[in-house]
Amino acid sequence: MGEPWANSVAGIGTDLHLDLTGPRLRAGLTDALREAVRTERLTPGTRLPSSRSLAVDLGIARNTVANAYAELIAEGWLTAQQGSGTRVARRTKPRRAAPAALRPRTHPTYSLLTGSPNLAQFPRREWLAAARRAITGAPHEAFALGEANGRIELRTALANYLARARGVYTDPSRIIICSGFHHALALVAQVLKDRRVRTVAVESYGLDIYREQLSNAGLRTPALQVDEHGARVADLNRLPGVGAALITPAHQFPTGVALPPDRRAAVLDWARATGGLILEDDYDGEFRYDRSPVGALQSLDPERIVYFGTVSKSLAPGLRLAWMVLPAALVPDVVAAKGYLDWVSSSLEQLTLAEFIASGAYDKHVRAMRLRYRRRRDQLVAALAERAPGIRVTGLAAGLQAVVELPPGTEESVIRAAAAHDLEVSGIAEFRYGSTDGRDALVINYSAPLDTEWVGALAALCAVLPPTAGNPAGAT
Amino acid sequence: MGEPWANSVAGIGTDLHLDLTGPRLRAGLTDALREAVRTERLTPGTRLPSSRSLAVDLGIARNTVANAYAELIAEGWLTAQQGSGTRVARRTKPRRAAPAALRPRTHPTYSLLTGSPNLAQFPRREWLAAARRAITGAPHEAFALGEANGRIELRTALANYLARARGVYTDPSRIIICSGFHHALALVAQVLKDRRVRTVAVESYGLDIYREQLSNAGLRTPALQVDEHGARVADLNRLPGVGAALITPAHQFPTGVALPPDRRAAVLDWARATGGLILEDDYDGEFRYDRSPVGALQSLDPERIVYFGTVSKSLAPGLRLAWMVLPAALVPDVVAAKGYLDWVSSSLEQLTLAEFIASGAYDKHVRAMRLRYRRRRDQLVAALAERAPGIRVTGLAAGLQAVVELPPGTEESVIRAAAAHDLEVSGIAEFRYGSTDGRDALVINYSAPLDTEWVGALAALCAVLPPTAGNPAGAT
Repeated sequence: MGEPWANSVAGIGTDLHLDLTGPRLRAGLTDALREAVRTERLTPGTRLPSSRSLAVDLGIARNTVANAYAELIAEGWLTAQQGSGTRVARRTKPRRAAPAALRPRTHPTYSLLTGSPNLAQFPRREWLAAARRAITGAPHEAFALGEANGRIELRTALANYLARARGVYTDPSRIIICSGFHHALALVAQVLKDRRVRTVAVESYGLDIYREQLSNAGLRTPALQVDEHGARVADLNRLPGVGAALITPAHQFPTGVALPPDRRAAVLDWARATGGLILEDDYDGEFRYDRSPVGALQSLDPERIVYFGTVSKSLAPGLRLAWMVLPAALVPDVVAAKGYLDWVSSSLEQLTLAEFIASGAYDKHVRAMRLRYRRRRDQLVAALAERAPGIRVTGLAAGLQAVVELPPGTEESVIRAAAAHDLEVSGIAEFRYGSTDGRDALVINYSAPLDTEWVGALAALCAVLPPTAGNPAGAT
Repeated sequence: MGEPWANSVAGIGTDLHLDLTGPRLRAGLTDALREAVRTERLTPGTRLPSSRSLAVDLGIARNTVANAYAELIAEGWLTAQQGSGTRVARRTKPRRAAPAALRPRTHPTYSLLTGSPNLAQFPRREWLAAARRAITGAPHEAFALGEANGRIELRTALANYLARARGVYTDPSRIIICSGFHHALALVAQVLKDRRVRTVAVESYGLDIYREQLSNAGLRTPALQVDEHGARVADLNRLPGVGAALITPAHQFPTGVALPPDRRAAVLDWARATGGLILEDDYDGEFRYDRSPVGALQSLDPERIVYFGTVSKSLAPGLRLAWMVLPAALVPDVVAAKGYLDWVSSSLEQLTLAEFIASGAYDKHVRAMRLRYRRRRDQLVAALAERAPGIRVTGLAAGLQAVVELPPGTEESVIRAAAAHDLEVSGIAEFRYGSTDGRDALVINYSAPLDTEWVGALAALCAVLPPTAGNPAGAT
């Protein structure tokens, strides 16, 4: 057999360890031929043997070969033309992706970067138990595409939880489930844009990703200065044309200040006087250490405030579940922006979280984490007091991170020194946005490191902090 | 005590069954006061008793009252001014959502609407078993916000599965996980727009929601006529400026035709000649009944075809998991459009699906469903042959639905008659888009009804089908 296909096709029975009976044989033959074309052992234009002669060669039924050919013709690997038999079709050779794309990134040994709680503490067993109860007991319709608001079971559990734990004024009809604050903010930005809002004030410290979502929606985002008492909300009256303000009243991110009563009142006054909307990002409201949590601003005026919450700090960012509590008048707009159906969030995971909350596992987990993070925070404060006594730490009352103040002009060099000690850490400059305040500081997420890494991370941090005026170590 | 607060506050200890010790007492007092303000038993401006006198009245420590007041001042429920004591703050009374919003919608007894597989057959036990293995064994970083491509475990499992079951040319680096075809198409639309594509041809039968996603992205969507052999892809050369074409080659939705070999070749020729991109929606490629599935078009030219797949038909739409296999050159653009991080899909659910596929449970489920749906299809054909013998059924080779042809001009009246028989069913007009073909037909999803409803749904359908020329029942 001098034909070019001969070597390719002749050995397929033994090469592929084919089960030489029934439909599996045809599938094996089809696969082998497809592979031969793909790898160019059979080049484009090559004429294949007739089904009769290949069947004889392989000792199988002619129909099996004819069916395999028909299948590959249907798929476009082969072509059949009257009079010229079956040939390999012309196709383009695919390019392999650069192997670099699959190479894992390298990480430093220690990280105190913000954004994540302690992932080692995710309550796997309790979550799985909730999943088992939720999925076993779910109605069939739970497996369908749901409505945009989210599962009623989760909205009901959240309404109870938020009223009890965060003082939020709500009922399930005001809640909309999202895949994160990121998603929620994109939806609200779209609604604001549709309502001809052009400008949303944002705090002069915060995360760029959220500002970008607003500006991607075509909104301007002037900075609202943050000082040692949080956002200077009185300035809202001086910024031109602000239709909404995005603030973190319970625990400013990342400076850690709680908005004091007079400013809470002032931002409400602004909203009432101008018809503006307050966007309350309550990202870590559950974690307050030395007294009860400050209740949400939202309940003071639920028709002027959108409240945002998430499991990203209380459980894990990987779950992609969050919620907003909306003014009643905004619910239909956000439902429309979401597309009327829930194209995003898994109904099974929503039911699992509903069960997790309703069973009390969520409260229990938050309490356990609060104790654990408070201990971490106290260890941070103690270590700094001992090993870097001149260094001031702020933003300690709540949350997962603290601000370690640095002498002027040292932030960048401390971050570089940390990297040399295999520690990644953020400077406060990373979060600054149109701020008139130029202080130097580190933002330390003390919650995230594994127990096995925490002592080392703390040691690396203390090792790189510069001596200060009040630091006896620096005075020697 | 003639003060207006007296009645409200005096009874709180007994009303609320408070534990009158420690921090729970303060929390109870705070809640009771908050509730009194919320329900306007304490009206705005009302002056509260001093902490000393309320403590005496209630027989509790003064500090407990002072702390409760401080908490409510911090939250904004109360205000404190030098000299004028503690007063109830002015606030706006929230509006209750219309109770109608929470009322459940009524559903007809029977539904043959498209969009969902049989939800009663969701493999709950096997899914939970996969979740248990996946979540128990997951690395800690699985609980973090992941990268935009999606979990590598899932992309690896999918690369193997898609190559084996659908003949897709892929490796994990070409796969991007999404929350559904809806999400995937939105991302690709954005990338096309950024690449100055203005026009995406869509089939003249299909779902409006997907066309709308393209037009929402600012793309024009001229119709590509679908005839009895599927999309007339040769017309792509006549439509002006088409940069991409969205097609369903394995099983046109909803007409059910597989694109024949000459048209598969023609659409590739068009893509090669013009640099156009083919968007291959393989929504139900696994379900082919009378022969092996037609392999994906994608492997014939992986650099010119985006392949889309989903679990919405094979498992459940409520899971919100889907994937695209991209030309290597498009991967970075789609990752950028997704925002570099996975803001959308739960990493735990991705790991669960990875485990479900890798363990063979997915193949097993698809095989079981294929048998079940084929039986349903055969029952539909048999029932129509017996009870409406003149009626022609098409699109039967694959998928979850079939097309029941109707005599001209009867589609709307049949749908109304079905509604009167408590059956909801779609006419083909619902899916028509710029089609020059005006046939009357129903699109019947035979896969979705529960076993307990299937016989009734079939009976209702047969009861409302009109007599046809060839129908002896109609000739009497």
